[in-house]
Amino acid sequence: MSTNRLIYLPLGGAGEIGMNCYVYGYGPAGKERLLVVDLGVTFPDMDTTPGVDLILPDVSWLAERRDRIEAIIITHAHEDHIGALAHLWPDLKAKVYARRFTAAIGRLKLEEAGLPLDTITTVEPHPAQIEAGPFKVQFLPIAHSIPESSALVIDTPSGRILHSGDFKLDETPVVGEGWNPDLFDSIAREVPVKVLMCDSTNVFSPLPGRSETTLQAPITELIKAQKGMVVATTFASNVARLKTLAEAAQAAGRTICLMGRAMQRMVKVAQETGVLTHFPRTIPPEQAAEVPRGNLMLLVTGSQGERRAATAQLSRGKYLGIEMKEGDTFLFSSKTIPGNERDVIRIMNAFSEMGVNIVDDQGGKYHVSGHANRPDLEAVHALINPAMLVPMHGEHRHLREHARLAAERGITADVITNGMMVNLTGDAPEVVEYIETGRVYLDGSVLIGAMDGVIRDRIRLALNGHVTVTVILDENDELLGEAWVELYGLPAKGQRAPDLAAAMESELTEMLNGAGRKVLRDEDKTEEAIRRVVRQVGVEEIGKKPEVTVVVSRMEA
Amino acid sequence: MSTNRLIYLPLGGAGEIGMNCYVYGYGPAGKERLLVVDLGVTFPDMDTTPGVDLILPDVSWLAERRDRIEAIIITHAHEDHIGALAHLWPDLKAKVYARRFTAAIGRLKLEEAGLPLDTITTVEPHPAQIEAGPFKVQFLPIAHSIPESSALVIDTPSGRILHSGDFKLDETPVVGEGWNPDLFDSIAREVPVKVLMCDSTNVFSPLPGRSETTLQAPITELIKAQKGMVVATTFASNVARLKTLAEAAQAAGRTICLMGRAMQRMVKVAQETGVLTHFPRTIPPEQAAEVPRGNLMLLVTGSQGERRAATAQLSRGKYLGIEMKEGDTFLFSSKTIPGNERDVIRIMNAFSEMGVNIVDDQGGKYHVSGHANRPDLEAVHALINPAMLVPMHGEHRHLREHARLAAERGITADVITNGMMVNLTGDAPEVVEYIETGRVYLDGSVLIGAMDGVIRDRIRLALNGHVTVTVILDENDELLGEAWVELYGLPAKGQRAPDLAAAMESELTEMLNGAGRKVLRDEDKTEEAIRRVVRQVGVEEIGKKPEVTVVVSRMEA
Repeated sequence: MSTNRLIYLPLGGAGEIGMNCYVYGYGPAGKERLLVVDLGVTFPDMDTTPGVDLILPDVSWLAERRDRIEAIIITHAHEDHIGALAHLWPDLKAKVYARRFTAAIGRLKLEEAGLPLDTITTVEPHPAQIEAGPFKVQFLPIAHSIPESSALVIDTPSGRILHSGDFKLDETPVVGEGWNPDLFDSIAREVPVKVLMCDSTNVFSPLPGRSETTLQAPITELIKAQKGMVVATTFASNVARLKTLAEAAQAAGRTICLMGRAMQRMVKVAQETGVLTHFPRTIPPEQAAEVPRGNLMLLVTGSQGERRAATAQLSRGKYLGIEMKEGDTFLFSSKTIPGNERDVIRIMNAFSEMGVNIVDDQGGKYHVSGHANRPDLEAVHALINPAMLVPMHGEHRHLREHARLAAERGITADVITNGMMVNLTGDAPEVVEYIETGRVYLDGSVLIGAMDGVIRDRIRLALNGHVTVTVILDENDELLGEAWVELYGLPAKGQRAPDLAAAMESELTEMLNGAGRKVLRDEDKTEEAIRRVVRQVGVEEIGKKPEVTVVVSRMEA
Repeated sequence: MSTNRLIYLPLGGAGEIGMNCYVYGYGPAGKERLLVVDLGVTFPDMDTTPGVDLILPDVSWLAERRDRIEAIIITHAHEDHIGALAHLWPDLKAKVYARRFTAAIGRLKLEEAGLPLDTITTVEPHPAQIEAGPFKVQFLPIAHSIPESSALVIDTPSGRILHSGDFKLDETPVVGEGWNPDLFDSIAREVPVKVLMCDSTNVFSPLPGRSETTLQAPITELIKAQKGMVVATTFASNVARLKTLAEAAQAAGRTICLMGRAMQRMVKVAQETGVLTHFPRTIPPEQAAEVPRGNLMLLVTGSQGERRAATAQLSRGKYLGIEMKEGDTFLFSSKTIPGNERDVIRIMNAFSEMGVNIVDDQGGKYHVSGHANRPDLEAVHALINPAMLVPMHGEHRHLREHARLAAERGITADVITNGMMVNLTGDAPEVVEYIETGRVYLDGSVLIGAMDGVIRDRIRLALNGHVTVTVILDENDELLGEAWVELYGLPAKGQRAPDLAAAMESELTEMLNGAGRKVLRDEDKTEEAIRRVVRQVGVEEIGKKPEVTVVVSRMEA
């Protein structure tokens, strides 16, 4: 009697947009062979993760079972799908499969981390198939905002899974393969799809998505109409958009210059892998300053306002010898991701001060999304007609709405979020276990757990400032000299005290002189008494309770 | 020969949305009598102002000339126009004028700060006029998203100024006086308007603004269709919206409960001042739990995701005995202000997890803006036909676009930002001086300058963490014992070192033992050497340079 089961366990991306990492398993309970789809990152912010460099999924559940991992599949080369590969691969050490362009980007990451490049195997798309234990996987070309995005056909002894990856229904995506409904129709007819795992990003967008090609005419028209220098930004990985922008510039008789490391790298890899052809000739930044402004077009990184990217640099002044001037035009051929508004707006205002004309996406005229909108999702539901639908790649509200949408069509659908292990063997997803999972922070050069308290302490430092108190006790546990206070991130003056540190010192010295040996002999009691005084003076003088580090030194007889 | 001149000097609000404070002056250069319009605040964020409570304009220029201030006018009771009154009034001590509702809100602020209430004089609207030195001021009722917003007619010996305040062209604003084009037409015909100072907030919104009344039908329909509890949020000061929401609830047979201090206060003041009449009966929160969910409607604070407001509290669980449940509906009858997206989205997802139906403004179906859109601004330009236009209440990009729009009509228009003093006596604004101005932070209970470095240090603490180093030197300037290190907001382990603090201590002890008297006798050299070691170990072990507090104690012989 077979007790094999088919399981699904998202470790990232289900209940958030970013940090995608989905696990499938097949085999006896607790002994399933595992297939990992994507190893992505998400990005930190000052509110919740100050000082952090990258956020990765916590894959310790996988790492503890790494002998059971048959393969790691990367669907496409966006950072939220591939960004954690080099950081987490050493814990997993499984074979990685990706299509040519994605594999090339992945190898660059492995190379930087000093990891073996043959870790990644380049695969051909459907009908080629890879075998990974009980899984047979085919990569189906599908349109997205990066070349060679793939949906996955995952055949298991329990039935066929269609993992959509990130996609849109664009039949003419400018670069790479377009949406091919006949292919997906044939996949669904060949073997009925048991479960459709489906991108939920744009489930709240009510109108059908538009093709990348719809941007060509308006962008060309816009660039032709400009007299000064034209600068455009978009995601570096949106190679199709880069091509559209570059061709429009060429049509307007402009020389093209790529600025920003990511931009140059993406175009290079896209060309080397044969994904991008007929891209107009570009000049290096050091030659750009010699081209008359009216004949120049820069394609730059930093559409989300990233501080170190080319857009932000240009907004602060000269960058690589180039400076924006009155009469120039800056095009944001992009959408601002929620949370990045302040940074983008700051840049727009800096350009405004320079007299630069700022053009944003203008409600879609100069930008289209890479994800399927609600009517597109409905079309896919109808085409694939799966027995079950599990929404992925979305915040909770997206997953819930997507499940509702599928249920309307009579498809069994459930909201499954990070850490929920579900059994897909039967007719409906059945939750069998809750896995402890979460986030890991790359902080400088080390990985720290999101729950370690390190970042919580940094947030407290930012909100409350810091006070160092040093006291020296002699061999009789009596205060030697006076308490010493140093402030960091706190005002020098209080409401009454002209010197906040001095006010704390005198209160502390008084307290310590009167505290008695019973308190001062006890490390914890002494520290607690000191903290209490610092906070009390803080509240009285500045209306704040600072964070406190206490160092008590004891002189030995 | 008269050397009198008419000047304009924005100290806040020109080059930003928020913190409005505009100064007019008339008289001999350097001796102008001054009129201050609005004393607003803006709000801090974690990225740039962690731990700060409020941001105020730096009015030291005004404070140094306070004997020249004839009056402070408050146009309306939004925080970005009145929020700094109680904080800054003690530095200015001039007479304050406002209409009834605004004055009542202002007096509440003065009362909390223990300031004299008779500071504020309640004024009647046009045709009543106040005299303030060379200025004659009339308050013109104008529609906005708060009751009794006023445009100001400011008559000076140099001509008539129309200061728009915040406004929209709503002839039926549900509460308070609507836009009255005849009144404004008569003002402009009576005496030609020399300068129109004009709200620029929505200059990028291409469609005409819509009336508050357009929301009544859709909101009523929405609430009637719900079965569970309905909760709605909007700005507490949007009294008209509260009325629309409450009346819709009443029509659906629901009992209304106001939650959140600001909400209760605004309704109370609006009723007491006669601005709000026929507001449906409400019950206090402690009675709400007894009402069947299907018959209950909560109106709550926190539309921008503010952590301590009712909306956020409800998203975290029980609040004042009430809990959201599956099948309830939460309506955001509001727009998310740029920068608040993450907080609002976090709350939406928390509600989604509870099974609550979330309804947002749906592209304007359940919310309208309080500011004039581009076509509305054009209509005002045409109606008033001023000799000059100075855009205000906008970021640089708004001011620039607004000036461009006016110039298209042949109106002289210039972008004047905070700190630029312009002479308006002639035919065009002429910049005569740059005033040092900026921002002041209310941090806990004290005011600190934006450039004092306190907040910069707090940001550094958040990004880099903090290390305290304590060393004790004996009477011969030799290290007594070992260096002592305490970490705050840093990982306990490094890449190689199992104990980061211990690794720093041993490097420090080694360095100090070998440093020699020349270094150790010198306070600065010792500290610098210690900092260098801490940062070096930081970079090697965790890829970060922490902030460092060094305390060197010296034992005397």
